[in-house]
Amino acid sequence: MHEEALLQHIYARSKDIAGDVLVGPGDDCSVVRIGSAQVLLTTDQLVEHRHFAADLPIDRIAHKAVARSVSDIAAMGGAPSCALATACLPNGYLHADALFDAMHRAAAAMQCPLVGGDIAIHDGPIVLTVTAIGTPHPTRGPVLRTGARPGDQVWVTGKLGGSLASGRHAAFTPRVTEAQRLCDQLGEDLHAMIDLSDGAGRDSGRIASASGCAIELDETALPMHAGVTDWRCALGDGEDYELLFTTAPSVQVASVKATPIGCCVPGEGCWLINRAGARHDVTTLGWNHGA
Amino acid sequence: MHEEALLQHIYARSKDIAGDVLVGPGDDCSVVRIGSAQVLLTTDQLVEHRHFAADLPIDRIAHKAVARSVSDIAAMGGAPSCALATACLPNGYLHADALFDAMHRAAAAMQCPLVGGDIAIHDGPIVLTVTAIGTPHPTRGPVLRTGARPGDQVWVTGKLGGSLASGRHAAFTPRVTEAQRLCDQLGEDLHAMIDLSDGAGRDSGRIASASGCAIELDETALPMHAGVTDWRCALGDGEDYELLFTTAPSVQVASVKATPIGCCVPGEGCWLINRAGARHDVTTLGWNHGA
Repeated sequence: MHEEALLQHIYARSKDIAGDVLVGPGDDCSVVRIGSAQVLLTTDQLVEHRHFAADLPIDRIAHKAVARSVSDIAAMGGAPSCALATACLPNGYLHADALFDAMHRAAAAMQCPLVGGDIAIHDGPIVLTVTAIGTPHPTRGPVLRTGARPGDQVWVTGKLGGSLASGRHAAFTPRVTEAQRLCDQLGEDLHAMIDLSDGAGRDSGRIASASGCAIELDETALPMHAGVTDWRCALGDGEDYELLFTTAPSVQVASVKATPIGCCVPGEGCWLINRAGARHDVTTLGWNHGA
Repeated sequence: MHEEALLQHIYARSKDIAGDVLVGPGDDCSVVRIGSAQVLLTTDQLVEHRHFAADLPIDRIAHKAVARSVSDIAAMGGAPSCALATACLPNGYLHADALFDAMHRAAAAMQCPLVGGDIAIHDGPIVLTVTAIGTPHPTRGPVLRTGARPGDQVWVTGKLGGSLASGRHAAFTPRVTEAQRLCDQLGEDLHAMIDLSDGAGRDSGRIASASGCAIELDETALPMHAGVTDWRCALGDGEDYELLFTTAPSVQVASVKATPIGCCVPGEGCWLINRAGARHDVTTLGWNHGA
């Protein structure tokens, strides 16, 4: 089974959802109208041996499980409200209390308190899910993947690469504050946004595909973490959980530390332009959950 | 690990949640204020070999996964708005497309469209989660487990027992319509409600415990499915997904088909009064997820 293909199947299957569903599957969050409120909804899984190694400390497991979903709220420019968590734990697992306590602490620290959940036991690895609920920015509204257009600048917060090797993948701070400052400052000039879970190449490709344009990234502009020297690592390592966003051409981003790394152009796909001027397709770099 | 004990640990851990969380963990749904709206939130897991056998048809697996969470919305007297689903599937599982299609169809049929989700692969059984979002009844508000009081009548919709043996556990209709009619008719006279997932004995005990009273059930009044002859099966088989609710003493329930099966009295626990007048503790009958 190829997860990307299955997700595409699900998105296609969901196009007929109407009514109060303003944004269905396929963006970082769904957007649903409930009463007079717009609500952001996202759910994510964290699977032992797949998303974390068995020796990762419990507080890191808990942090990562919650932070991944909160990061999806940030990717829409939203603020988290609360979350629900489930745990499917291996038969005989001894640390359930500690794990849940750690998830509660992590969620509270991210202003996203756990308000419900479920526990089950199975013959398998630890499987955690966190469903986060949030609200869009009150004036900008939800920032989607679909709003990029040729001429846009492409920016990224923080630095890229080496997340797994450094342990950052389980210790990152979701960019909720940065996302809200971008909405405050830029309003409608903030065109599209995504959080970097699968690598800046693949995730930029998702904005490009959703927006019907191409993205070109400049090798010389990429901000890399210490120890990361290859653009393939910067764009492909994944799990950076930084924000990648596009803005109107003339914008100067002053509200957060962000680096301009490329631009949107007519066409399709995401391309790295290296120092020599050669183009590399980077939409298939990085993490593919189902490969 | 004992799941009931762990849940109690989680509830205790959650007592300090405040702000916009009107009801935290421990009821069928959490109730959260988002903007000017009140939102019901619930999440549940469905685990292969634990909640269904490997030979259960895919459409039944999908139906059960969605219906369990929608039933929790019904238990609060609410209406479902939408849902998110995750699937953690065994390596090499061949029916992911069909499973997601079936979950979409089931959710749409329950007026609870799937608006998002996630897929992962692991070395373990099928693990599905469905998080459902809903809204409380517009005038009655959310019906909690805490509102029962001595003197209340105890009622149940439908019939009890034999759910697993008959296949009803994977084919039931969540009692959303019935719950709303009860709210319409009874308003504040509808005191407490729960959906019967773990058996009428254990689940009545939860209302009793949450409300600070005891519940006595009358063996001669229990409505049993054909083939169910023992009150231990009617109260302990579980997975009935009927509504059990308490009302003010003088109420006649006219809006739905329901059977009066007992009453609330001072004290604690849930007790079956048999034909001979003997009292049996039934709060430990039935399904305990972590036993």
